[in-house]
Amino acid sequence: MGDLHAATVEILGKLLEGLQADDNGAQDHEHAQFIHMATPRIGIGMDSSVTPLRHGGLSLVQTTDFFYPLVDDPYMMGKIACANVLSDLYAMGVTECDNMLMLLGVSTKMMEKERDVVVPLIMRGFKDSATEAGTTVSGGQTVVNPWCTIGGVATTVCQPNEYIVPDNAVVGDVLVLTKPLGTQVAVNAHQWLDQPDRWNRIKLVVSEDDVRKAYQRAMDSMARLNRIAARLMHKYNAHGATDVTGFGLLGHAQNLAKHQKNEVSFVIHNLPVISKMAAVAKACGNMFQLLQGHSAETSGGLLICLPREQAAAYCKDIEKQEGYQAWIIGIVEKGNRTARIIDKPRVIEVPAKEKDGELW
Amino acid sequence: MGDLHAATVEILGKLLEGLQADDNGAQDHEHAQFIHMATPRIGIGMDSSVTPLRHGGLSLVQTTDFFYPLVDDPYMMGKIACANVLSDLYAMGVTECDNMLMLLGVSTKMMEKERDVVVPLIMRGFKDSATEAGTTVSGGQTVVNPWCTIGGVATTVCQPNEYIVPDNAVVGDVLVLTKPLGTQVAVNAHQWLDQPDRWNRIKLVVSEDDVRKAYQRAMDSMARLNRIAARLMHKYNAHGATDVTGFGLLGHAQNLAKHQKNEVSFVIHNLPVISKMAAVAKACGNMFQLLQGHSAETSGGLLICLPREQAAAYCKDIEKQEGYQAWIIGIVEKGNRTARIIDKPRVIEVPAKEKDGELW
Repeated sequence: MGDLHAATVEILGKLLEGLQADDNGAQDHEHAQFIHMATPRIGIGMDSSVTPLRHGGLSLVQTTDFFYPLVDDPYMMGKIACANVLSDLYAMGVTECDNMLMLLGVSTKMMEKERDVVVPLIMRGFKDSATEAGTTVSGGQTVVNPWCTIGGVATTVCQPNEYIVPDNAVVGDVLVLTKPLGTQVAVNAHQWLDQPDRWNRIKLVVSEDDVRKAYQRAMDSMARLNRIAARLMHKYNAHGATDVTGFGLLGHAQNLAKHQKNEVSFVIHNLPVISKMAAVAKACGNMFQLLQGHSAETSGGLLICLPREQAAAYCKDIEKQEGYQAWIIGIVEKGNRTARIIDKPRVIEVPAKEKDGELW
Repeated sequence: MGDLHAATVEILGKLLEGLQADDNGAQDHEHAQFIHMATPRIGIGMDSSVTPLRHGGLSLVQTTDFFYPLVDDPYMMGKIACANVLSDLYAMGVTECDNMLMLLGVSTKMMEKERDVVVPLIMRGFKDSATEAGTTVSGGQTVVNPWCTIGGVATTVCQPNEYIVPDNAVVGDVLVLTKPLGTQVAVNAHQWLDQPDRWNRIKLVVSEDDVRKAYQRAMDSMARLNRIAARLMHKYNAHGATDVTGFGLLGHAQNLAKHQKNEVSFVIHNLPVISKMAAVAKACGNMFQLLQGHSAETSGGLLICLPREQAAAYCKDIEKQEGYQAWIIGIVEKGNRTARIIDKPRVIEVPAKEKDGELW
C-alpha cells in the first residue's frame, strides 16, 4: 500500500492543481484519492457534498469512496469498505444514511473459483456493515478490472439540524480522536511476516504475535462504524469534525483547520497508536511518518473539535456505548488556520485487544 | 470493447446467480455491468434505485455507472460518460438531476504529460455535459488504476409524479426508440482502420469515409442526453421505458417486458442502425449480433412503451426539439412478458450526419 499510496498522492496533487485553475479554488483533498471538483454548494472542504434540494429546506448529503483491498479477509474487506464510505457522512454529524450503492472491481487475475468465493464474501461484508448502520444497499456496479477495487456511495437527505458544518472551532476547544492511528503500519507489518528481508527490519522491536494482534486490532478498528461518534457530536455540541484517512492525522487536521471561520489553529499533543506500531514505524525510518502525522489510515476515526468542558464526557460516553476508548489529543488555540504536532508528542499505546467480547 | 464486454457479461452472469440465492431473487441485470443487489424498495428491475425517504413523501432516485473509455477523444469521452450515467435517471422519466459525483480511474500506463492533458479534458467533458443537463458535479473520486475508467453517480430527490415506474405497458402500446443502434460496431470499425487484418474483413462493404462518419455519428449519439426524451415521456403518457446499453436492444427489451404488471410481450419489427453499420456487422459473422439485438450499446436511446395514438406525436416532438429522429420500432401484444425481434426485421439506415448544425 505504501508505494501505491505515495504515487496516488503525487498524481492527484498534480491533478488538483490543474483543476484549481478553472474551478475557483474551491476543491480540496479530503483523502489521498478524493477530489471535490465543481463548486461545493456549501463552499468549504468537507467530507461529503451538501446540495440544497428543490424540496422544503432539505439537503442532499453524499459521498463516494473506493480503494484497493488491503486485508486478506474478503468479508472484513467488505465491512471496511462500507465503514469507510459511511465515515464521510459521519464526519458531518449525519447519522442516518438513506441509501448506499456498492462499486466493485473484480480482478481479471483472479481464478474463476477464487472469484466465486471471494466476491460474495466481500458483498456480504459490505451489506452486513450497511445493515449495522441502519441502511441498505440498493444498487451498484461491478466491473472486471486488473486490480480488485471496492467502494461505494452513501447518500442521505436531511434537514439542516442533522448535519454539522465543520467550520466552527473556537479557541479553547479540544481535539478528540475516536480510533487509534497505525492501521497502515499494522497492515504492512502483517504482510511482511512472509517477506524475510522486510521482516528483518522490524523483528527487533516487535514479535510475530504482536503483529498478528495489531493487524487484528487494525481490522476491527477499520470495520468499526463512526456512527455513534457522529451521534454524540450532536449531544456534546461538536464544532466540527473530519475523518482521518489517506492524508494521515496531520493532513486531515490541517485541512479542517484551513476551513475554520474563526482564526484558530490546532495543536496535537498525544498520538494514540495501535500497540507496538509506533516502534515499528520508527524502525522503518521515514517510510510511514506515523509520528509526524502523515501515515495514511483507512477508515480511521473522527477528529472532532469539542468544547473543552464537554470532551471528557464525550469520551466517556463513547466508551460506555461501544467499549472503545476515544482520546483528547490536542487543543484549539488562536492562530492562522493551520495544524501541527508538538515536537515530542506523547505516544499512547493502544492495546491490541481491549476487551473479550468483540462487537463483530 | 468486444471481447472485454463478452468477458464481463459472462463473469457477471455468474456473480448474479450467486447473489440470487441469498437475495430473494430481486436483482436484475440492467447493463452488462450493473447489479441490483439488495431489495430494490420498489421491487422491480429498473434503471435507477428508488428509496422512499423519511421526509414528506419524497423519494431518492439514484444510479451509478462506470466503464472503460471507448473513443479516442477524451473530452467526448467525458461527455459520453456523463450522458450514460444520467440516462438511467432519464429512463425513469426523471428530468431533474440534483447532484452528480464523478468517478475516475487514471491509467498507471499513461505518461505524466499525457495524463496532464487527458484527465482535465475528460473532467471538462463530464462537467459540460452535467451543465447541459442542468445539474452540477459536486464531488467524486479519482484513483490510479491499470485501466482508465470513467463513470459517476446521478442522484435526485423527487415527488412520486416526477418518475415513471416502468411496469405499465398495455396491449396496443407501441415501442419507440430514441437513438439509432450500432455504436459498438461503429467504434470497433473505426479502431480497425489501423488494423489491416481486421479492416480486410469489412472493406468490401464499407469505405473509410463511411466508417469515419459512422464513428462521428456514434460519438454524437452517445454524448446526447436522453433528457428531452424523458420529459416527453410525461407529455405523451409513457407506460414505461428503459435505456439501451450493455445488453443490447433485445436484452433490455426482455428485461423491461419481464417486469410488466400486465400479460404483455414486445415484438420488434424495425431496427434503426447507424448508416452502413448493419452491413459491417453482417460482414463480421456472429461477432456483434447486431440484427439479433445483442450488440452492446453505450449511452443508447430510450426504449419507451407509448400509447399507440401518442407515439407519432412523441417522435415528431422530439425531432422538432432536438433535430434527431426517433422511431416506432415495435408493438406490445398479449403475451408472457418476453420480447423478440421478428425474423426479418426492417433495417432503417440512419444517415451519418442528419443536419449541418450539430448541437454539440
